[in-house]
Amino acid sequence: MSSQFGHLFRISTWGESHGGEVGVVVDGCPPLLELSEADIQRDLDRRRPGQSEIVTPRDEADQCRILSGVFQGRTLGTPIAVSVVNKDARPESYREMEHAYRPSHADYTYQAKYGMRNWQGGGRSSARETIGRVAASAIAKKVLGALCPGLEVIAYVKSIQNLHAEVHTDSVTFAQVESNIVRCPDQAMAERMIEHIKAVRSEGDSVGGVIECVVRGVPPGLGEPVFDRLEADLGKGMLSLPATKGFEIGSGFSGTILRGSEHNDAFFMEEGKVRTRTNRSGGVQGGISNGEPIVFRVAFKPTATIFHSQQTVSPEGQEVELKARGRHDACVLPRAVPMVEAMAVLVLTDHVLRQRAQNH
Amino acid sequence: MSSQFGHLFRISTWGESHGGEVGVVVDGCPPLLELSEADIQRDLDRRRPGQSEIVTPRDEADQCRILSGVFQGRTLGTPIAVSVVNKDARPESYREMEHAYRPSHADYTYQAKYGMRNWQGGGRSSARETIGRVAASAIAKKVLGALCPGLEVIAYVKSIQNLHAEVHTDSVTFAQVESNIVRCPDQAMAERMIEHIKAVRSEGDSVGGVIECVVRGVPPGLGEPVFDRLEADLGKGMLSLPATKGFEIGSGFSGTILRGSEHNDAFFMEEGKVRTRTNRSGGVQGGISNGEPIVFRVAFKPTATIFHSQQTVSPEGQEVELKARGRHDACVLPRAVPMVEAMAVLVLTDHVLRQRAQNH
Amino acid sequence: MSSQFGHLFRISTWGESHGGEVGVVVDGCPPLLELSEADIQRDLDRRRPGQSEIVTPRDEADQCRILSGVFQGRTLGTPIAVSVVNKDARPESYREMEHAYRPSHADYTYQAKYGMRNWQGGGRSSARETIGRVAASAIAKKVLGALCPGLEVIAYVKSIQNLHAEVHTDSVTFAQVESNIVRCPDQAMAERMIEHIKAVRSEGDSVGGVIECVVRGVPPGLGEPVFDRLEADLGKGMLSLPATKGFEIGSGFSGTILRGSEHNDAFFMEEGKVRTRTNRSGGVQGGISNGEPIVFRVAFKPTATIFHSQQTVSPEGQEVELKARGRHDACVLPRAVPMVEAMAVLVLTDHVLRQRAQNH
Amino acid sequence: MSSQFGHLFRISTWGESHGGEVGVVVDGCPPLLELSEADIQRDLDRRRPGQSEIVTPRDEADQCRILSGVFQGRTLGTPIAVSVVNKDARPESYREMEHAYRPSHADYTYQAKYGMRNWQGGGRSSARETIGRVAASAIAKKVLGALCPGLEVIAYVKSIQNLHAEVHTDSVTFAQVESNIVRCPDQAMAERMIEHIKAVRSEGDSVGGVIECVVRGVPPGLGEPVFDRLEADLGKGMLSLPATKGFEIGSGFSGTILRGSEHNDAFFMEEGKVRTRTNRSGGVQGGISNGEPIVFRVAFKPTATIFHSQQTVSPEGQEVELKARGRHDACVLPRAVPMVEAMAVLVLTDHVLRQRAQNH
Repeated sequence: MSSQFGHLFRISTWGESHGGEVGVVVDGCPPLLELSEADIQRDLDRRRPGQSEIVTPRDEADQCRILSGVFQGRTLGTPIAVSVVNKDARPESYREMEHAYRPSHADYTYQAKYGMRNWQGGGRSSARETIGRVAASAIAKKVLGALCPGLEVIAYVKSIQNLHAEVHTDSVTFAQVESNIVRCPDQAMAERMIEHIKAVRSEGDSVGGVIECVVRGVPPGLGEPVFDRLEADLGKGMLSLPATKGFEIGSGFSGTILRGSEHNDAFFMEEGKVRTRTNRSGGVQGGISNGEPIVFRVAFKPTATIFHSQQTVSPEGQEVELKARGRHDACVLPRAVPMVEAMAVLVLTDHVLRQRAQNH
Repeated sequence: MSSQFGHLFRISTWGESHGGEVGVVVDGCPPLLELSEADIQRDLDRRRPGQSEIVTPRDEADQCRILSGVFQGRTLGTPIAVSVVNKDARPESYREMEHAYRPSHADYTYQAKYGMRNWQGGGRSSARETIGRVAASAIAKKVLGALCPGLEVIAYVKSIQNLHAEVHTDSVTFAQVESNIVRCPDQAMAERMIEHIKAVRSEGDSVGGVIECVVRGVPPGLGEPVFDRLEADLGKGMLSLPATKGFEIGSGFSGTILRGSEHNDAFFMEEGKVRTRTNRSGGVQGGISNGEPIVFRVAFKPTATIFHSQQTVSPEGQEVELKARGRHDACVLPRAVPMVEAMAVLVLTDHVLRQRAQNH
Repeated sequence: MSSQFGHLFRISTWGESHGGEVGVVVDGCPPLLELSEADIQRDLDRRRPGQSEIVTPRDEADQCRILSGVFQGRTLGTPIAVSVVNKDARPESYREMEHAYRPSHADYTYQAKYGMRNWQGGGRSSARETIGRVAASAIAKKVLGALCPGLEVIAYVKSIQNLHAEVHTDSVTFAQVESNIVRCPDQAMAERMIEHIKAVRSEGDSVGGVIECVVRGVPPGLGEPVFDRLEADLGKGMLSLPATKGFEIGSGFSGTILRGSEHNDAFFMEEGKVRTRTNRSGGVQGGISNGEPIVFRVAFKPTATIFHSQQTVSPEGQEVELKARGRHDACVLPRAVPMVEAMAVLVLTDHVLRQRAQNH
Repeated sequence: MSSQFGHLFRISTWGESHGGEVGVVVDGCPPLLELSEADIQRDLDRRRPGQSEIVTPRDEADQCRILSGVFQGRTLGTPIAVSVVNKDARPESYREMEHAYRPSHADYTYQAKYGMRNWQGGGRSSARETIGRVAASAIAKKVLGALCPGLEVIAYVKSIQNLHAEVHTDSVTFAQVESNIVRCPDQAMAERMIEHIKAVRSEGDSVGGVIECVVRGVPPGLGEPVFDRLEADLGKGMLSLPATKGFEIGSGFSGTILRGSEHNDAFFMEEGKVRTRTNRSGGVQGGISNGEPIVFRVAFKPTATIFHSQQTVSPEGQEVELKARGRHDACVLPRAVPMVEAMAVLVLTDHVLRQRAQNH
């Protein structure tokens, strides 16, 4: 069960970073939706390595194939399997990992849990596993397109280390996000971020930051209290991404310094719809969407792989020094933007189907 | 499925705030564990209303009954049902809620989702629902006691609005937490917090804050990547609690301003065990516990119920003013401490059983 | 997970035969359905002990209480908890069971599985556990009534030992079934069955038989291949009832002696609908309902409790003799009829909601 | 969720009969088990078409590839993906199916459920889907080999139409089953069955029959009442196979004609173990294995595809005549034997892990 997500729109991802292939099976997709490999490829291209000068140079086309579940260009309602072959795997770059746990990586914990690990790269803990998620979310978008027309999910880099962007959640566009290689819609700050990432990388170091995501056009009523609250499932989805350390929705941690009289979102009527004057709730109240934009943020730690010498230990219990080789992102955030969107899309799609089942 | 949590140690909570009864069914509990109503009552007493001068004066003894699954003082391995009767429900205090949505409450969203709601109090969105969770966690503690002796879960108030406590995660004790009514182990700060909550309450207002939780004595290997990472399940559990707006583990959001070379936790050997020099990972790497203390924080917004007049709308679409009556917590955090512990215990117990199934 | 059934309309039953109380929590029920305790009581009365001279004289009113999930007479969409107190439990009648495993009962296997058991009666293996199922199905019928008006589920005794009834699945009515205490719509055969059960009981012995169930008015499209085929879920539901040894649908085992040319159901059109000339498929093809009546049969073994002296062993490994005391059904089938209906209703309701989610 | 099976050892199958590829993802497999493609191939070869003169001549090597989850010859504990490419798909043979529903096939019901279908063969309803199940069961056998050494699962043809074999469940061997192409260990009857199938096939007709399965060396304690009783999960697994119409365990339907005094299995002690004198329970009591051999039977209808002209209707609602072309099994049972074994292995493996989690 470790590699499945969703209750009705359920995905199963598989594959190791430096194994032969990675992929996903999507179960529960509604039928009759138009779907092609090009639909999926578009999203995979946004998360693939080698797409710009600030991400890892690993050269993977990440070309997808749909293996089942589609007939004459439309979904059948049966499981959709999607696969991507690893082309530029270089397991030999990881040979020293056989005898050293990389600090703040998953090497030690996988060994502790399973008694063995694929030490030729990150295995399942690699961001490469998210190919399956992004592919599945491309399919899920078709469901949302059919059932929630007008819903849009836009994620972007909000901060890199101490560089904070100014972004308006009501008006930010996908084009603004995609207009630069760091995926920050504040163009001036984007340039500074890019320069900063380059500088850090040249020093063999790494940085983290915060990705913000806004979902507009959400119908009221999504989310299933008490445990499958919308923010709980969004939070779980985000915290299941590699390198994440935190999640907050609406006012988040900064909301804890306000009083109730400052924090509450007053209701009013607008064109026959219930609206709120402010949106400190972040679009979710009591675990259920209220129709306002959903706004949340995800903290990503600095990449664990750095090209400095580090203290660590071997599986045999010896203290050793380790210096990374290989090809890595000095900052994962530009490529994590589509991953955050993917998990948001998957959570929303699942809840749209659940809502339809119980409360149509 | 909305009210179930856990994969192997699965709980199902039921009951409305001002209905007759609330409770839980625990499925999957191992047999042969000693269990009495007193074991459960101890934990329920920590979360019940009326226990101190800074929490709601609603007078509920929250006396529990075990209805099944226990025989001659030990668990049978069959479902354990626990029930608590509501004694001091006063649904008449909520009459005005029939015709007004309380701002930043779940009134509107429940109505939008289900087409109706129990307006006599918060229904399922009330903190009263957490009785079932706390009762279930008292049972789960028996499992942890048997399978992970030495594991301890300690939560406490870390901040109230701008009042921040100093707490050492390696040494904080349950007794320190319980030594004052705000449940903050920094005694000097606890006094200031208590005074502050009283002052805010007297103004008819409310405050929020942050609860920190540390889990010590965790065996390495808990957590199931890629989706059921330990921090993902902890995050989901916490974000399923009423009034939460954020979750972070280890370095969390503040870790995003460090470089990789500052953030990585170096490994070393100590008494034959793999340890880390620092713990910015918060005890979890790649979604799996590494044996270091798990440390996470949860943001709670200020209580939505305030005794000021507020703008809102009615189910009929009229804009109206609303002023709360009834008995409420001006700050939920002291009572939320055992709720946070409960969810942590439930997540850990489930993962201990899952680990035993796959990797024993 | 042992005591939960259904994917979207999910029930959790709890309680032991001679514990204080038994019950069920229903999660996922659609809101706005009228529901009262009387709706549930009607079905519980059909399965309760003491209702006629051929069933166990245990005197249980089985009076139910709805504890949550209903407000002003309608379902809220939140978990519905229903409870029934055991009034006439006589655990002292079972004292000898502490030291002897009853043949063909679950005493030994529960002990082997859990290392202990509630020996004061059948515990969870007792038919008393089915109270929760029948209560849940009374709620589920409300869902079917709203979403599949015209659908009807009718079960009846098809055979007792070698006494076989003639029943027309297209025309049999609930009133015919309820017109006699053995619940066999073939009145002449019903009288013979009643006499036979009385005779067997007077000899301290027991009998089994076959219950047939027909579901008419099923919309085409229910069932989720490949694993959750409608017949697979019906089969699982039936085989989860106490004392069942077999399940067959449509032509069943006797269909194995036909050739394909004799067995196939030819399609034809009738009033714009696709129909089949024969119904050897039993209303399900490829795991999905085809709109024809669903017809299946369930084999119930003779009651294991008999009043003859039997060879058995003790938990301590001694060979001993055992002669039952207590109050028992010499034939479970009359009371199992509503249990079969209940499981059929639960399976269909779950699949109606699932179908609505994916394929509406 | 339609294509997933198992709670802890969970498989997800995917692929259509005449699509490009079929496969399975296995989640939850314990690590450190030796596994190669040859281990899987051995089982696939038993169920592949073209293996003998009495099965379909479709020429598929069914060569499997392991795509993930295995490293240096051992399982990693991560998802194991296995894929088989369809080589001899001839979708053109099915062109007439676009405009005619095959009687007693799933064509109409898939269309009714999903609003479309892959009419180029049976799609998901084809026996080809079971490749994923058989591959997964080859992996599961490794788990059973490690955790339940000595457990063996043997299925065989018990009857073809009216030809019934004599088989001793205590002594039948795998070699006996594999010694003839119909997979019936009663050699004399096997010859008659083979002749009969050939004769029926030459007439363009088809036959069904019964497969019996015995599981020896089962530890007591497997099965999770009340819903996941071992026979309920076995029954579901079997009824999820194509062409099945019935399931019975132990005495099954014929047990309904016995009295309790004849049917009960007396307990006795043998070498310190609890045994039963007879085994009408079929190795399961109260839903839990008792250590005796598990014996069950599955009814398979005659193959729906026959080469006679049949009455049917078109998707457009016209009544039409249809005569099959293509390559088909006149009797599915020889190839269904490994499918029955596969589902039994999957159910048992899942329950072994579940038992280890709760009751170790």
